[in-house]
Amino acid sequence: VKKGERELIEGIRKRAARQDGVGRLVRLGIGDDCAILRSRRGEELVVTTDLSLENVHFRRDWHPAASVGHRCLVRGLSDLAAMGARPEAAFLSIAVPRELAGRWLEGFLDGWMAAAKRYSVVLAGGDTAEAPRCPGSSRHSLFAADILLVGSAPAGKALRRSGASANDILYVTGELGGAAAGLRALSARGREYGRREHLYPEPRLKAGVRLVAKHLATAAIDLSDGLSTDLTHLCEASGVNAIVNRAALPIARGATLDDALNGGEDYELLFTARPGTKVPARLAGVPVRAIGRMIPRRRARHGAQIELRGEDGRRAPLLPGGWEHFRPRGEGKS
Amino acid sequence: VKKGERELIEGIRKRAARQDGVGRLVRLGIGDDCAILRSRRGEELVVTTDLSLENVHFRRDWHPAASVGHRCLVRGLSDLAAMGARPEAAFLSIAVPRELAGRWLEGFLDGWMAAAKRYSVVLAGGDTAEAPRCPGSSRHSLFAADILLVGSAPAGKALRRSGASANDILYVTGELGGAAAGLRALSARGREYGRREHLYPEPRLKAGVRLVAKHLATAAIDLSDGLSTDLTHLCEASGVNAIVNRAALPIARGATLDDALNGGEDYELLFTARPGTKVPARLAGVPVRAIGRMIPRRRARHGAQIELRGEDGRRAPLLPGGWEHFRPRGEGKS
Repeated sequence: VKKGERELIEGIRKRAARQDGVGRLVRLGIGDDCAILRSRRGEELVVTTDLSLENVHFRRDWHPAASVGHRCLVRGLSDLAAMGARPEAAFLSIAVPRELAGRWLEGFLDGWMAAAKRYSVVLAGGDTAEAPRCPGSSRHSLFAADILLVGSAPAGKALRRSGASANDILYVTGELGGAAAGLRALSARGREYGRREHLYPEPRLKAGVRLVAKHLATAAIDLSDGLSTDLTHLCEASGVNAIVNRAALPIARGATLDDALNGGEDYELLFTARPGTKVPARLAGVPVRAIGRMIPRRRARHGAQIELRGEDGRRAPLLPGGWEHFRPRGEGKS
Repeated sequence: VKKGERELIEGIRKRAARQDGVGRLVRLGIGDDCAILRSRRGEELVVTTDLSLENVHFRRDWHPAASVGHRCLVRGLSDLAAMGARPEAAFLSIAVPRELAGRWLEGFLDGWMAAAKRYSVVLAGGDTAEAPRCPGSSRHSLFAADILLVGSAPAGKALRRSGASANDILYVTGELGGAAAGLRALSARGREYGRREHLYPEPRLKAGVRLVAKHLATAAIDLSDGLSTDLTHLCEASGVNAIVNRAALPIARGATLDDALNGGEDYELLFTARPGTKVPARLAGVPVRAIGRMIPRRRARHGAQIELRGEDGRRAPLLPGGWEHFRPRGEGKS
């Protein structure tokens, strides 16, 4: 089914018009040169952007179109969750291969809009283009999406990566490694073996809002690249080191320790709290586990160092092992 | 030159740190899960997003890397200009082919940052990824960028496409067709024949702000797709038709009538004003020409209709002839 760009945009606009909640922050949505937002008094706007690229973040033969749409939006929502922000508006830019402009794109938008409705995000704008054909190949082109999300948080209260101190306790929501285990099942056994944790992850938005409302956390980040990498980011921003207790890690069913440490895309929240803070065992229905603590940086000029403490008490360095683009290595994860 | 993603992001962050003006609206820029913006009282935020795709919006062999960066940002700035908004913050997401991650990317960022400095935009965030290799080709991948811009405008005063009435006069800034003529020169004669109008277009930001401050315009749009297409958008949003006087069109040197009507990417402003409004001959140093007027829609259920009136007084229909993705046609413009 070939469609003109106007028809495509008209279809997206009609879907957007059916959304509830337009008007909380969005004063003018799709249809003009720009959207118009007006923030409420006492609130700040929190903004994040995330690419979703075919063969980097998903594969057409592994991921159902609705999962691609869901994951595209959730990548950004998880960043809002890590700031303790409430989602408000989204902007979606898509480069669409001609052969995907029909049913596949409808599936993508179904998944995207279902997640938008569930998490109260208004589609306020974006851009569409036909994806260029690959040079040297007359048939192929690749889908790409960029999602920009605007959220709101009480002024000055949004959670940052930089607020952790030595002796703070390190917590994580939910379970770790389920997404990596799900990806492995997909790649080994095909799309009928996809797991929800990988195909339809849930952003921890309510847990993030609760952390802000109850002043529980000193710093937070979401687990998109893997615990080892994201904890390194948090430590570097805060100027501290960390010890993780292996026995305390909430490893998902079917996942390995490596999945839990380096797997990525779990979209759980990793946060720190002062030693005296009473952190509940569940936040907005999601289990919370203490998995370690922050320690002083030994030498200021060194980068952040993380140690994994085994059940025998021995410590080993935990190096950032999550996915990084442009790193010289063979096959990366999709 | 291969670089790790962290190194790449660090390079962009250092460039961003050298920016002046951080803090007007941006309270937290690159480096956390999200950026934080706080709008000023009495102002609204105006948001736009634009894709820039290799082989769709530019070609590696035609456009210098700095021009690709400049044009990527200006596409969005021109949308802000059309709303009469002042630029504040930008978010840049890029998918970078491995072979472009060195000097080419530096050139792209040079062009991008020079335009950002010139137009007072703060780089507040974004995303980077390695562009996927094309299937069926081991060597190729394509650059893609998505730019999101946040501007500010006095609350309720931003210009929209929908405010024009019958009898309003139709104006355009600058000259038309120069970008299309420049693209033709590039494609026929190579990159040393590039013209500034195509490679380094200027967004009409000051003219847009002046239109708002002096309450001159009833509606506005920027000329990104071509006069015939963008005027159709304005007419459809406003529920009116339009007549354009061929003799009044300010056609750029070396450009044809077709370039001026259908060429696109001139990034001039097209706006309407009440018949009694005194519109100056120049706005912020840019010439302004009256090129036609708005007339009532003959039948409400029909779409917008535009006529071109020749010097002999005869009228002919002017159909939208600008670029549209997914339209079944052979070779499109790049």
